[in-house]
Amino acid sequence: MNDSGKLCLHSITTRPWSIEEAAGKYSAAGIRWISVWRDALEGRNPGSINRMLQDEGLGVASLVRGGFFASADRMKRVEAIEDNIRAMEEAAALKAPLLVLVCGADPTQSLEDSRDQIREGIAALLPMAGELGIKLGIEPLHPMYADTRSAISTLKQANDLVVLMESALVGVVVDVYHLWWDPDLEVEIRRCGELNKLFAFHICDWKVPTEDMLNDREIMGKGCIPVARIRQWVQEAGFQGPVEVEIFSKHYWSRDQDSYLKEIIEAYKHRS
Amino acid sequence: MNDSGKLCLHSITTRPWSIEEAAGKYSAAGIRWISVWRDALEGRNPGSINRMLQDEGLGVASLVRGGFFASADRMKRVEAIEDNIRAMEEAAALKAPLLVLVCGADPTQSLEDSRDQIREGIAALLPMAGELGIKLGIEPLHPMYADTRSAISTLKQANDLVVLMESALVGVVVDVYHLWWDPDLEVEIRRCGELNKLFAFHICDWKVPTEDMLNDREIMGKGCIPVARIRQWVQEAGFQGPVEVEIFSKHYWSRDQDSYLKEIIEAYKHRS
Repeated sequence: MNDSGKLCLHSITTRPWSIEEAAGKYSAAGIRWISVWRDALEGRNPGSINRMLQDEGLGVASLVRGGFFASADRMKRVEAIEDNIRAMEEAAALKAPLLVLVCGADPTQSLEDSRDQIREGIAALLPMAGELGIKLGIEPLHPMYADTRSAISTLKQANDLVVLMESALVGVVVDVYHLWWDPDLEVEIRRCGELNKLFAFHICDWKVPTEDMLNDREIMGKGCIPVARIRQWVQEAGFQGPVEVEIFSKHYWSRDQDSYLKEIIEAYKHRS
Repeated sequence: MNDSGKLCLHSITTRPWSIEEAAGKYSAAGIRWISVWRDALEGRNPGSINRMLQDEGLGVASLVRGGFFASADRMKRVEAIEDNIRAMEEAAALKAPLLVLVCGADPTQSLEDSRDQIREGIAALLPMAGELGIKLGIEPLHPMYADTRSAISTLKQANDLVVLMESALVGVVVDVYHLWWDPDLEVEIRRCGELNKLFAFHICDWKVPTEDMLNDREIMGKGCIPVARIRQWVQEAGFQGPVEVEIFSKHYWSRDQDSYLKEIIEAYKHRS
């Protein structure tokens, strides 16, 4: 049985709850960690949210999400960098040590061009990231998102990219949903650990059948991903951080969030 | 401009048409090749269908599809092999030189177990395949189908598998829809050619956004896949066979099939 001390919830997992309500509920359920989505901060002061979360006994694992660097339109690339700078400032105020990057892709250009722009975009953030002490986590996304969301589809690509970036601030976010199918996953998780680049670990499950490409994720143990096995690889690679539950699901969002939260905690303890 | 002599259509591409109607329409449009889906043969004699296709001047590139070897249930694995034997007999009667294999996956077991069963399943077909002179084409499927359709998700895996199988009858089917996102695609296409294992080549496009994981493919040039570039790699790898258009699309199936066919031929000539 997993001790719940490392359980972290992404605010989007219980999307119907405001960040204040989520914090109260998570805390009451014995959860100690939260990753905050930027939409949950809307109209709020990130510094005040940090104090509210501290009062609830919640540490902030990461701010989610920056990125979307790739575009054939140069102005959009500049705007993306500006938006990522704002995200890093929010992360600093929120005392989130990590900004998760969904790197982006533009279907009107080649994946190679998108990858070049991703490298340039991350490089442009490094001076400010250093000043603010914010780490940047490249999250490879499932190949079904290679059209518009991420030209980085495998852990090998993310590892290769962080090696190329040569910055202590740039690492990788491993999410079982995106990577479970990859025959190289175990090897690349080990490599990521050896590089000391495994910055965060996200879990959920793959629903069978999946009916919506974006918002139909499953609770751990109810799909086909060997979550516990991948978690073991991640821990053997030296990762000791929080284990983050990130579920997008129209189905669960439409249900009672209290019983859903209980189900997540049970699944975390016994099937993760 | 591509000469239409190599253009091949999968019968499922124009699903509303019966095989007889499709054959007449393809032939009248100057198409010389067809790949036949098994559902199109229902209630028909494959030998008679072969003669009908010959009369229309159509060569048969392949029968689609066998496979689905993976199951935690041993009886289902036996049934799958029996069904593949029937498929090979149909292919022989149809004078199709190739049976396309969608290898299968069972979400209740590990991908490794599914892959073991795929190897065993294909091995079980080899004696009959040799007798009938039918080649078997392993088609790696997009990782979004790794839950139930294919534990073989990349061209590297398919290449590795055919090397392991050590049979002149077993090769690979490259489909741009499944493989376009893969950073190793060019290298693995070259390798497949060097192995002399590139048995078939399927094209279509990835619609942006894709709204249905199964039946929302696009006509070449209207999505984000660099079809012409991948086709060049395939030809540089020595492939000289037909170029097969395989589109599943509720959208196009609901439209007038004659104008859709014209659109496909234009896209093949100018954007493939």
